[in-house]
Amino acid sequence: MFSAQANRRSPWPTREQRAEEREAKRDAVLRTAARLFKERGFSAASLDEVAACLNVTKPVIYRHFASKDQILLECVSMGLEQILEAAADAKTIPGTASDRLLALMKRYAVIMTEDPGMCVVRTGDHELSEPSRKEFRRLKRKIDRVIRSLIEEGVEDGSIAPCDVKLTGFAITGALNWIAKWYTPNGAQSAGQVADSMASLLQGLLARRP
Amino acid sequence: MFSAQANRRSPWPTREQRAEEREAKRDAVLRTAARLFKERGFSAASLDEVAACLNVTKPVIYRHFASKDQILLECVSMGLEQILEAAADAKTIPGTASDRLLALMKRYAVIMTEDPGMCVVRTGDHELSEPSRKEFRRLKRKIDRVIRSLIEEGVEDGSIAPCDVKLTGFAITGALNWIAKWYTPNGAQSAGQVADSMASLLQGLLARRP
Repeated sequence: MFSAQANRRSPWPTREQRAEEREAKRDAVLRTAARLFKERGFSAASLDEVAACLNVTKPVIYRHFASKDQILLECVSMGLEQILEAAADAKTIPGTASDRLLALMKRYAVIMTEDPGMCVVRTGDHELSEPSRKEFRRLKRKIDRVIRSLIEEGVEDGSIAPCDVKLTGFAITGALNWIAKWYTPNGAQSAGQVADSMASLLQGLLARRP
Repeated sequence: MFSAQANRRSPWPTREQRAEEREAKRDAVLRTAARLFKERGFSAASLDEVAACLNVTKPVIYRHFASKDQILLECVSMGLEQILEAAADAKTIPGTASDRLLALMKRYAVIMTEDPGMCVVRTGDHELSEPSRKEFRRLKRKIDRVIRSLIEEGVEDGSIAPCDVKLTGFAITGALNWIAKWYTPNGAQSAGQVADSMASLLQGLLARRP
């Protein structure tokens, strides 16, 4: 009790405050970098610009990240982790596997309208170093597997028509990923509306047909 | 008669032969470049490598193309023109608009398994110069319009269920374009089989549902 009060009054941040601040700084660098990579492409965007957007200089960025490659990897990982998180949440939804897949597709579509998601789709494998590329591919494969397993579950519980699971999975991720290529926030529909419509439309790929 | 025979015997090529040879050389450069751009990405692939693959040196390439940017633009244009050609052919098919769209989707999917088509999908707008980027976008918009007009025709002739035409078009092109990202010729299915299955699957997006 005494020590907590002392900490609250001290002009020096606590260990927790320092960690939080550090996290906030890393996060700001990643979000700014994701936006610039998206706008100009990875090679054209410079860390000097990222730094300038945050009112600091490049050496400050290097206190948090070893290289531009590491920043790109963390940007795309942020987008991919968001999808994996959406998948984990979707798995807890009661009902059929088709319901769970629909929920995942909606969240996935929204992620594709945001900077980290756009970065995922706009980043070519060759833009990353060899070890980063491996990690990028590992995360993408993980997402492919999650989608395929939901389709398989749906075929088992009868909520999805028997199909070529791999191909259907690729059709779904292709249509969802492509949102990152065409979506602009200036359109008539909000990101949420686009996401809901796209997810419902893609259910047509799964529906039992005569 | 006499002059034709003389030409046939002359060791010098005719004007037509020279034009053909020139075309064959341009084509070889573009196909080699498309393959290398696809394999390593545009910035990593060098024109020296393209030249070496063709047993010549870079200055020979520059006799046919002004710049690496022009070569990339012509590579992606080759892929996009193939799709527009497929669309023009599809338009002549009798039957419903849904039949025509199915035929186009099959050809489109095959194009996505080949180097120029893969180049289209793997090339980011920012990798091209400003004027080339404009041309790249113009061709892509033309394809979007062709697909949308086929969907609209289908809604009119009753072969396609009423839908959000723009969104449905993007779902189709997204799923088709994504083939260029995942397809490898080492898979169990041939390009033609993948294309046929994907096109049939995507019909699910267009089907009249209860």
